[in-house]
Amino acid sequence: MEHTSAVPQAVENSNAGSQFVQSLARGLDVIRAFDAEHPSMTLTDVAKLTGLSRATARRFLLTLADLGYVQTDGKHFELTSRVLQLGYSYLSSHTLPQLIDPVLQGLSARMRESSSASVLDGADVVYISRVHARSIMRVGISVGSRFPAYATSMGRVLLAHLPAADLEARLAGRELSALTPNTITDPAELRAELTRVRAQGYCLVDQELEIGLRSIAAPVFAPDGSVAAALNISMSTLPNGTGHDVDEAAALVLPELLAAAEQVRAALAARR
Amino acid sequence: MEHTSAVPQAVENSNAGSQFVQSLARGLDVIRAFDAEHPSMTLTDVAKLTGLSRATARRFLLTLADLGYVQTDGKHFELTSRVLQLGYSYLSSHTLPQLIDPVLQGLSARMRESSSASVLDGADVVYISRVHARSIMRVGISVGSRFPAYATSMGRVLLAHLPAADLEARLAGRELSALTPNTITDPAELRAELTRVRAQGYCLVDQELEIGLRSIAAPVFAPDGSVAAALNISMSTLPNGTGHDVDEAAALVLPELLAAAEQVRAALAARR
Repeated sequence: MEHTSAVPQAVENSNAGSQFVQSLARGLDVIRAFDAEHPSMTLTDVAKLTGLSRATARRFLLTLADLGYVQTDGKHFELTSRVLQLGYSYLSSHTLPQLIDPVLQGLSARMRESSSASVLDGADVVYISRVHARSIMRVGISVGSRFPAYATSMGRVLLAHLPAADLEARLAGRELSALTPNTITDPAELRAELTRVRAQGYCLVDQELEIGLRSIAAPVFAPDGSVAAALNISMSTLPNGTGHDVDEAAALVLPELLAAAEQVRAALAARR
Repeated sequence: MEHTSAVPQAVENSNAGSQFVQSLARGLDVIRAFDAEHPSMTLTDVAKLTGLSRATARRFLLTLADLGYVQTDGKHFELTSRVLQLGYSYLSSHTLPQLIDPVLQGLSARMRESSSASVLDGADVVYISRVHARSIMRVGISVGSRFPAYATSMGRVLLAHLPAADLEARLAGRELSALTPNTITDPAELRAELTRVRAQGYCLVDQELEIGLRSIAAPVFAPDGSVAAALNISMSTLPNGTGHDVDEAAALVLPELLAAAEQVRAALAARR
């Protein structure tokens, strides 16, 4: 499965205008070109994936190597752990992931299921915390993973609590693809579901992102009443999963999930 | 406590030479200037921290805002969750963190203590996985955190298994500061300790990085016999911690820690 957004080819230079630093944009694209399918790349691979010329890609790769973000045997290039420092700048400068981590840890230990937290970035959810409860399931999801919000339980919780104009701006021109036969692809149906999610206080998504995957999410409210993040528990529908039907699964995990969301809300409020 | 390396002021342009892309280096410095002490900054703050002129800092901040990595109210700038995508490029393109996450999860659940994994970046350790077992302790450590290797249990395990020339290159010119009164600061004493660590197969560090913090680390061996990463368990020495003395602590957690390291080694070998 590969839902990660492609490296963007075009960038709107709305604020920076002529001040826009093209080299920075391109360098960040080079970093983002590396992923699970492309862990180690030649100069030619990087040029192809980023749309840069070989000469330009070479300059960026050698610069990243000089800075310690990339290592090379002369032919193949790989990211180094120094790249994590960039993500760490976000994690350490925001209180939310730090408050959420231990709460998810406790939640996953009690429920023996994986749990996550995410926020919106455009029309995608981005994971800001992730606890893996089972070794085999869903390797490859971690902090920084992104999925289309409309097809995920956390995404729907986050979209459901947006002001109407913000919601429309994020969904404008966004196609609702059928990621599985269950995915809601009709915009009117999605909006009705968001209204329901907002009213009931949680969202259950059954195999709309991926067959075999069920998840249930709840909002974490910020002191100003907006939604700061969504938390979820994900479960397998397969025989090696809990094997519960949808309603049983919801009944089992929902009270614990809502309690975890309330715990983070209270911690956020106390930090004010 | 603040052990995070400062934003580097000078960069050796060894490979890229005249091809070195200064704008990329500066842009990455701007991202890394944000941290727990500087979550939200004005243009002036960023210029001061990075050593850039105000005009240059402005161009980089506006470019990062256009690219969605930074958000601003017109005066203050903050990183957005999109920055996590950069770190995710590393996490998703390397198997190791994905194999380690569920193992640490199980280890922390059984021992009820925080656990971590890290690799070397120069003379520092960088966390590639982290499980928080207690809400109160050590908020602010997460994937991407870095500490000086010489004063940490994971760092000593990683240093202990390096070829001699590599070890000397990493420690060359590196001062061994006394981070606490317990820190080993004598180079000869550190080398003797590294020899001991290598021979005994684990490392216990008692309050050398921070008073009140004790940790024990073990190596994860790669199929080629080198050390791929170090795993650790960290414990409080304070009354609200386990309250055990050093030897009791080691005896309690060591068997589980070694089993976890062996589990990751076997998973790595199976992936070959």
